[in-house]
Amino acid sequence: MSLIDFSEITTALQRIQPYASQTPIFQSRMLNSWLGHEVYFKAECLQRSGAFKFRGAINTLAWLQEQGKLPKKVVANSSGNHAQAIALAANLFNIDAQIFAAQNVSAVKAAATEYYGAELTLCATRALADQQVKQAAEQQDIYWIPPFDHPQVIAGQGTVAVEALRQVEGINGIFAPCGGGGLLSGTLIATRELAPQAEVIGVEPLAGNDAMQSLQNGKIFRFDQSPQTLADGAATLAISELTFEHLQQLDDFYTVEEAQIAYWTQWLQHLLKLHVEPTSAMCMAAVVAWLQQQSSPQKVMVVLSGGNIDQQKMQALWQQDYLQQMPIIVD
Amino acid sequence: MSLIDFSEITTALQRIQPYASQTPIFQSRMLNSWLGHEVYFKAECLQRSGAFKFRGAINTLAWLQEQGKLPKKVVANSSGNHAQAIALAANLFNIDAQIFAAQNVSAVKAAATEYYGAELTLCATRALADQQVKQAAEQQDIYWIPPFDHPQVIAGQGTVAVEALRQVEGINGIFAPCGGGGLLSGTLIATRELAPQAEVIGVEPLAGNDAMQSLQNGKIFRFDQSPQTLADGAATLAISELTFEHLQQLDDFYTVEEAQIAYWTQWLQHLLKLHVEPTSAMCMAAVVAWLQQQSSPQKVMVVLSGGNIDQQKMQALWQQDYLQQMPIIVD
Repeated sequence: MSLIDFSEITTALQRIQPYASQTPIFQSRMLNSWLGHEVYFKAECLQRSGAFKFRGAINTLAWLQEQGKLPKKVVANSSGNHAQAIALAANLFNIDAQIFAAQNVSAVKAAATEYYGAELTLCATRALADQQVKQAAEQQDIYWIPPFDHPQVIAGQGTVAVEALRQVEGINGIFAPCGGGGLLSGTLIATRELAPQAEVIGVEPLAGNDAMQSLQNGKIFRFDQSPQTLADGAATLAISELTFEHLQQLDDFYTVEEAQIAYWTQWLQHLLKLHVEPTSAMCMAAVVAWLQQQSSPQKVMVVLSGGNIDQQKMQALWQQDYLQQMPIIVD
Repeated sequence: MSLIDFSEITTALQRIQPYASQTPIFQSRMLNSWLGHEVYFKAECLQRSGAFKFRGAINTLAWLQEQGKLPKKVVANSSGNHAQAIALAANLFNIDAQIFAAQNVSAVKAAATEYYGAELTLCATRALADQQVKQAAEQQDIYWIPPFDHPQVIAGQGTVAVEALRQVEGINGIFAPCGGGGLLSGTLIATRELAPQAEVIGVEPLAGNDAMQSLQNGKIFRFDQSPQTLADGAATLAISELTFEHLQQLDDFYTVEEAQIAYWTQWLQHLLKLHVEPTSAMCMAAVVAWLQQQSSPQKVMVVLSGGNIDQQKMQALWQQDYLQQMPIIVD
């Protein structure tokens, strides 16, 4: 299996420009001063549909249209952000969309999916949703856009890093969360081309460490059921052959405990004034661990993947007071 | 007592430009479509120190410096955002700062005040803090910057509306929260000049409705102790003679119940992906009530005053699930 070429990502960037936002870069002076390094945040929570997933979705539809193959309907299986992204993208291309999700799908994500005009079909489990979407896609003129295992989806997600590395020069390390590995694969390809000196680092919840196990054992590890973690955007069962091929080239990979995920969600929401998802904030635990190994001041980019959080999760995230303990490295 | 002149605000805007950010305007397509109107949000939560208060603070110091009267030290009394703003402003002018606050001051606001290098003195009650700051200010070369009762503070806060009304044309109504009335007074002066057709509307928590009572009775009403409300930025004891003079010229004034404050904080955090304070989000309850009286589509500006929220407040705000009930006006 071959890696996706960087030119696919630059083509994707041109393709999505009429639809997607160029999201801004955020910084916190206070955080930088505490850490003694510069941390830049690519705010994909401000992307349309509230997450980077819109890039892969709209790129795939625009690519299909280019070839005169725009289907009558798209289907997708997703824990949330991908569903919203497909629903919005289909809406913008005036085609139907049907989303298959597990019943524990976040309420606001489900509401948004339906607001964008998509049909939402709830299945007992994520594995069942994965099955049903395959069956639906066997019908004529229906196209299945998977959440990560598709070259055009990965190329779309890679546009985040292209923008980010053009917005900030001289980055030494770029961090992205790992669910199915689409965002991380795209980030890897873009960074190797645009900032070859920079390390590319993946981050995953310890409670959903399928990618870490896959990387350690050299073959794909699959959970039987969705792992329970605050970082719901990274609660996939397994990465794919295609993303595994990319992830094996990462410079480093970290797993993060649940308390650290809550800690950094509180701090990033407070310091950046952005409503960031735990899946995004989780990366900061890896950033801090990585920075502690560096001997000189670093410039780091963190991809804030999204900002769609339901009330139950917000309540869980803010149960304990982590804002009393400052995130300090310097001394 | 005379009103503050618009020229004071444009002068303030020039004065603060080297220090303050021009904050961006946010919108939610989903919210607009639900309401059937256009709502623009001026994101002062992204201002330095996390709230509009920095504008009044830095303007006052820059104005003192202009006259060769920059003191050796500034003192201030505040429930939070003003304290942080003074601390940061003093830091930027290399002078000392001492903040007098009630013991129930938010933990993160206190931490930030000290991070900016100010001395924090906790008093048993807000009324005591108000007394102590006056005593401190009697010493030589110490200048007291009050949270709202000062022409240069009001002129500084007025720069928010100047920016906002230049960023978006054709606004029909502008909404700002009312604590001591500094932001609202500045907003009134700026809007009368730049968008004379627009209504200027103040908003206050029902639980801390001192301004509403003052306006209804034609004289300033004062609480004996700090009202308990989620909207802590509006929990002042009373407005001042100077702000009262301005607030009497408002086109409308609304009070908001606590459940509505939580409701709109959840929805704005979710829709805008901004970590907005309840004092900011509260305005949306007034916007909806006002829009229901309008017979044609309106363009509304909401001043999002800040984004400094401690964990206890976040927990209280997200206790119930308000994201299940969509904010719908249309039909």
